[in-house]
Amino acid sequence: MTKESTTIDVGEPSTVTKSSSHVVKKKGFVAAAAGGGAKRGLAIFDFLLRLAAIGVTIGAASVMFTAQETLPFFTQFLQFQAGYDDLPAFQYFVIAVAIVASYLVLSLPFSIVTIVRPLAVAPRLILLIFDTLVLTLNTSAAAAAASIVYLAHNGNQNTNWLPICQQFGDFCQNVSTAVVAASIAILFFIVLIIISAIALKRH
Amino acid sequence: MTKESTTIDVGEPSTVTKSSSHVVKKKGFVAAAAGGGAKRGLAIFDFLLRLAAIGVTIGAASVMFTAQETLPFFTQFLQFQAGYDDLPAFQYFVIAVAIVASYLVLSLPFSIVTIVRPLAVAPRLILLIFDTLVLTLNTSAAAAAASIVYLAHNGNQNTNWLPICQQFGDFCQNVSTAVVAASIAILFFIVLIIISAIALKRH
Repeated sequence: MTKESTTIDVGEPSTVTKSSSHVVKKKGFVAAAAGGGAKRGLAIFDFLLRLAAIGVTIGAASVMFTAQETLPFFTQFLQFQAGYDDLPAFQYFVIAVAIVASYLVLSLPFSIVTIVRPLAVAPRLILLIFDTLVLTLNTSAAAAAASIVYLAHNGNQNTNWLPICQQFGDFCQNVSTAVVAASIAILFFIVLIIISAIALKRH
Repeated sequence: MTKESTTIDVGEPSTVTKSSSHVVKKKGFVAAAAGGGAKRGLAIFDFLLRLAAIGVTIGAASVMFTAQETLPFFTQFLQFQAGYDDLPAFQYFVIAVAIVASYLVLSLPFSIVTIVRPLAVAPRLILLIFDTLVLTLNTSAAAAAASIVYLAHNGNQNTNWLPICQQFGDFCQNVSTAVVAASIAILFFIVLIIISAIALKRH
């Protein structure tokens, strides 16, 4: 842990040597405790970030899940209605972000372990690896939905895809909110990974 | 770097102390060398993965950039043509993946540093943090494009967006290839991050 380069004069006066070795030992202990303290601070920050990310992802998934709008007019055969299940990208978003939120809840015990034992390597490594995988899942969900939201807002003349947000304004609003929330969760995950990396490194 | 706790000035009973100090020194050296060797192996794997990822991302960006199809018929005013710049998600893909490829080239020197000095912490940490950021960029590009490719293949009845791949089959083929290549790059980045995490951890 700590780099100690002690110079021990061993000759006659044995008492001196002993006492100096004691001092060195204590120093090492203090250094380790300080490192542990800094890492415990990181671990507590990690835990709080996970709580915030749980809130954000549950919010994103539920806003997307409940986003729905029915237009106040209908024909004999058709009722104009938009919901998240009309677009596969939004369905994927709901499922993926729900998985991300569940993972975050399951990761809390590991985060607590890193608070209790700030120098333990295994839980840190596990958190870092799974955070990376889940970051990928979260990012893909947010980007896929964002790309459809953009299309819904602006349409595309080249492919003749018309914007639908003019009709379904509230729906688009909710869906955009969900995408923004998922993007904030991406930032949280990046910070979580950097925290784990710093906690893993040797001094 | 290596934990050596020696330098012993010896007074009288020189032989015993000396020999024991030698043993300690040798042990520490052997342990450091073994750890360094394993980490050097990881660093070489890291370097090779980066080379492969450079190939894949340059391939993805250029296939998407050159994907273009002109239909063999046209009216007086219109020529039916599809290119990556017809869809914002594909433009984003080309730019983002090109940035990812450039980053990978710039990261090679750092990777070489970790081969030469397998126990150095700073270059590892830098690589891990930037790999994470670039993984996010790469994933968002791939997912945004994938979501549009899906739409181009299948269309969407609810929003009245018609599939365009029936007309522009070759274009869709190339675009899909680019998305698949970018997805392979995502896997490479995940492995790179895990390598960095393992190399960072204390023994």
